[in-house]
Amino acid sequence: MKAKITLKDIARELEVSISTVSKALKNSEEISRDTKEKVQAFAKLYNYKPNNIAISLKNKRTKNIGVVIPAIVHHFFTTVIRGIEKYANAKGYNVIVCLSEESFDREVINMEMLANGSIDGFIMSLSSETQQKGDYNHLKEVTEQGIPLVLVDRVTNEVDCDKVIIDDELGAYMATKKLIEQGRKKIALITTDDYLSVSKARTEGYRKALLESNMDIDENRILKLSSMQMDEKSIEVFFSKKKVDAVLCVNEIFTVFSMRLVQKKGLRIPDDISFIGFTDGVLSRYANPSLTVVAQHGERMGEIAAQMLIDKVENENEEGNYQTKILEPTLVVRDSTVN
Amino acid sequence: MKAKITLKDIARELEVSISTVSKALKNSEEISRDTKEKVQAFAKLYNYKPNNIAISLKNKRTKNIGVVIPAIVHHFFTTVIRGIEKYANAKGYNVIVCLSEESFDREVINMEMLANGSIDGFIMSLSSETQQKGDYNHLKEVTEQGIPLVLVDRVTNEVDCDKVIIDDELGAYMATKKLIEQGRKKIALITTDDYLSVSKARTEGYRKALLESNMDIDENRILKLSSMQMDEKSIEVFFSKKKVDAVLCVNEIFTVFSMRLVQKKGLRIPDDISFIGFTDGVLSRYANPSLTVVAQHGERMGEIAAQMLIDKVENENEEGNYQTKILEPTLVVRDSTVN
Repeated sequence: MKAKITLKDIARELEVSISTVSKALKNSEEISRDTKEKVQAFAKLYNYKPNNIAISLKNKRTKNIGVVIPAIVHHFFTTVIRGIEKYANAKGYNVIVCLSEESFDREVINMEMLANGSIDGFIMSLSSETQQKGDYNHLKEVTEQGIPLVLVDRVTNEVDCDKVIIDDELGAYMATKKLIEQGRKKIALITTDDYLSVSKARTEGYRKALLESNMDIDENRILKLSSMQMDEKSIEVFFSKKKVDAVLCVNEIFTVFSMRLVQKKGLRIPDDISFIGFTDGVLSRYANPSLTVVAQHGERMGEIAAQMLIDKVENENEEGNYQTKILEPTLVVRDSTVN
Repeated sequence: MKAKITLKDIARELEVSISTVSKALKNSEEISRDTKEKVQAFAKLYNYKPNNIAISLKNKRTKNIGVVIPAIVHHFFTTVIRGIEKYANAKGYNVIVCLSEESFDREVINMEMLANGSIDGFIMSLSSETQQKGDYNHLKEVTEQGIPLVLVDRVTNEVDCDKVIIDDELGAYMATKKLIEQGRKKIALITTDDYLSVSKARTEGYRKALLESNMDIDENRILKLSSMQMDEKSIEVFFSKKKVDAVLCVNEIFTVFSMRLVQKKGLRIPDDISFIGFTDGVLSRYANPSLTVVAQHGERMGEIAAQMLIDKVENENEEGNYQTKILEPTLVVRDSTVN
C-alpha cells in the first residue's frame, strides 16, 4: 500500500502553511493565484484525496471514536473525555484521544491521522487558534463526506453538525448575579479574547448581570488574556493596579492563582474579596478556601456527545438532521463567596 | 477488507475474560484444558492473528506513536504526554493517546486497536490492574514481533524493552530525610498497595530514611489505599485516629486533600504538621500553603521515552539492545514544610 499524501505533506513540500494549502484546494480568494496553481498541481500530481476515511467507512465499522481536544491541563476536558469513554465503552466502542495543544496545524494533522480508516466518527472541541483563524475547512471536508462529527463546548456556527454546549452566558450571569446579591460593587472578570467562543459568551453573561442591576461596566475591570494558558505576569499586574471586591474567572487555574496572589497581599477570602471560577475540578474542591464554581457538567456533555455520534454512526440515514444540545450550568457554592 | 478478530471478540464470544483468552492462546498452565481447547479452536476457526501491526510495519511507516497511559487526572501523566509530544512532533511524528483508566482489559483493547497499522511503536505506563494481575502477555506479544515498545514510570521486569523511570525510592528517601532533619518524629506515609511498582519503591525509600536515622517504623502510620484513585473516607478515618507531625503522600491529590482536612481541624501547616507530596503540578503550586514536592520530571521522562522509541523505529537493527534510563527526582521546597 502506497502511503497517501496529506495536507501536511503538501504544506511541507511547498513551504507554505497547512491553512494555505487547505484554502488553495478550496479555491479561496484569500490565496494568490500563483500559490493556488502550485498547490493544486502538486495535489493532482500526487493524487491527493481529502480524507480517505470515507472509503473505509463504507467497508467496515472500526468501533473506534476519534476525539480531538485542545488540552488536558484543564480539568474540564478530562471530564469530557471520561464521559465520552463511559458511554462509548458501554456500547463497545473504543476512544482514541488526540491533543491539538490549542494549535490549528496540530488539529488538522490529528484529524488527517485519524482519518486513515481508524475511526467511525469524530468528537471535537476546537483549538483556540482555529477559532482565532476562523478556518473550518478541515471540519467541512469531514461533514460533507458524511462522516459523523460532534462538536463539544468550543463550537462554531460555520459547520453544520451535531453540537453539545453548556449555556456559558447563563453560567457567567448566575455567578455575577450571586456576587451582586452579596453586595459586591467592584466585580472583575478574568477571561480571554473574544475569539474563543466560550469566553465571548461568558463575558456577555457578566455584562448582562451588571446591566440588569444598573451597575456600571468598568472596562478596566475586565482582563482579557490571550489564551486559556496561564499568564501569571498579566494577572499580577492586573491585581497590582485594580481595587476590586469580587472576581469571576473563566477557568479554575486562573482563579486559584488569583486567590493565592491576593492572600499574599493580606486580603481575606471571602471577607475582603470573593471569587468564583468556571469548572468544578479537584483544584476548586481542595483549594483553601474551597472555591465557588460554575459547574460545566463536562462528563454529561461527553456522554451526550458520544450518544449523538454513535446514533449517527449506526443509523446512516439520520444524516443531515443536526441538533445542538444546550446544558444548563450549576452554581456550586463553597467558601470563596459569602454564604 | 474483512474485519480482523481480536482478543476482545474471542473473550466476548466465549464469555471468558480477555486475560483468560490471552493465557489460553499461550497454552498457560493456569487455564483448564477444556477452556484452552475451546479458545484455541475458536481462534483457529476465525483465523486470529496476534497484532497484525507487524505486517503493516514492514510495508510503511505511519509516523504515528501510540501512547497508552492509566489516567489523566494525575498531573504527572499530562506532563509525560507533553514531553512525548514535544520530542515526537519536532521529529515529524504524531501522538495518539489512549487511556486504560487503570483497567487491564482496556489496556489490552487499546493496544489491539492501535495495532491495526495505525502506529510505528508504543509508549506505555502500566495500569494498576495490570500490575496487580502480573499479566504481561499483551506486551510480550508486541516485543516478540519486534515492534518497538518503551515503558515509562510504571514498568515491569518481566518484559524486555526500553524503560524510563524515576528513582522513586530516592525521591521518598529525600523527602523523609527532609522531614526528619526538621525534627519531625511521627512521620506518616499515605501510599497505595505494593503491587503498584512506584508505590512499592516509595515505601522502601520512606523506610530506609527512618531506619538510617534510627527511628522506629510504626506500621500504623502507613496508610495503604487500594489505588491512586481518591479515597476521601479512608484518609479521613486515618487522620481521625493517628497523631502525626508530618505526612508524605504518593500523589498531589492525596496531599492537598489531607492538608485541607487537618486545616479544618485547626492545625497549622507547617507549624503543627508538615506535608510533602509527589508530583510538581498546578495543584501543588497553587495550594495554600504551597506544597513541598518531589518533582518527577514527567516532561523530561516523556521526551526521553519518545527519543528511545523513535531511535528504535528508525534503526531497525538496534533491536534487542534495551536500556533502562533512571532519572533523579528533585525536592522542590515550598511553604508546607519548615524552611
